[in-house]
Amino acid sequence: MIEPKIGKEVIFEKSFNSQDVVDFAKTTEDNNMIHLDEEYAKDTMFGKRIVHGMLVASMFSKIFGTIYPGEGCLYYGQTLEFRKPVFLDTTIKAIATLIEFNDEKKIGVFKTEAFNEGGKLVINGEAKIVFP
Amino acid sequence: MIEPKIGKEVIFEKSFNSQDVVDFAKTTEDNNMIHLDEEYAKDTMFGKRIVHGMLVASMFSKIFGTIYPGEGCLYYGQTLEFRKPVFLDTTIKAIATLIEFNDEKKIGVFKTEAFNEGGKLVINGEAKIVFP
Repeated sequence: MIEPKIGKEVIFEKSFNSQDVVDFAKTTEDNNMIHLDEEYAKDTMFGKRIVHGMLVASMFSKIFGTIYPGEGCLYYGQTLEFRKPVFLDTTIKAIATLIEFNDEKKIGVFKTEAFNEGGKLVINGEAKIVFP
Repeated sequence: MIEPKIGKEVIFEKSFNSQDVVDFAKTTEDNNMIHLDEEYAKDTMFGKRIVHGMLVASMFSKIFGTIYPGEGCLYYGQTLEFRKPVFLDTTIKAIATLIEFNDEKKIGVFKTEAFNEGGKLVINGEAKIVFP
């Protein structure tokens, strides 16, 4: 049994390169040009390609599925606000913090946040995880 | 300008094979064994490998990014309840339905649902999309 400790914080850092974005587009079939086409992206409000929001959000899936609580947990829910664009080849810091735990149902509520290199919040939300 | 029509419904169907799940695990680093290891999965409550919830949820990203509203839209938010496991090589039907639209902010609220082959709801939630 993984100990559910209120305040427990897990950090996972990652940067997404062009191959990551191309692979994600292929697997999900989300091939919107803002992610894939540098020439197209130049003329958008962002000025360059951006990483798919759901790919960045999957950093939380990585945390829950492999770090804490890890093996045997169940992903029960996730809310996501995509607050800022995430650019390729920049380091994103995802932080999951356990803020509530229901002993009976074994469901933990995590604050889930991702920050860019400038420390700005790019994704905000909460996750619900059933502990093993 | 894409016309925001309340009640507009978009359907996207897809099944996820082993390669999709392996590729997603590689890109996201979520290599929890329930997704990758058939032997391990046999002894879990599900009895077999399941698709990552965030990979299934990315069907909504595919819809918004490439079908409706498509090019030029912004993914602003997504809530997700993972209600049932999704097994490999089964057809999932994702449906996004425009339920509200704010003319001033150009933000559309979509009901986002995914169903398995038996018609059971596997993912439930809502998305907020800024229209182009």
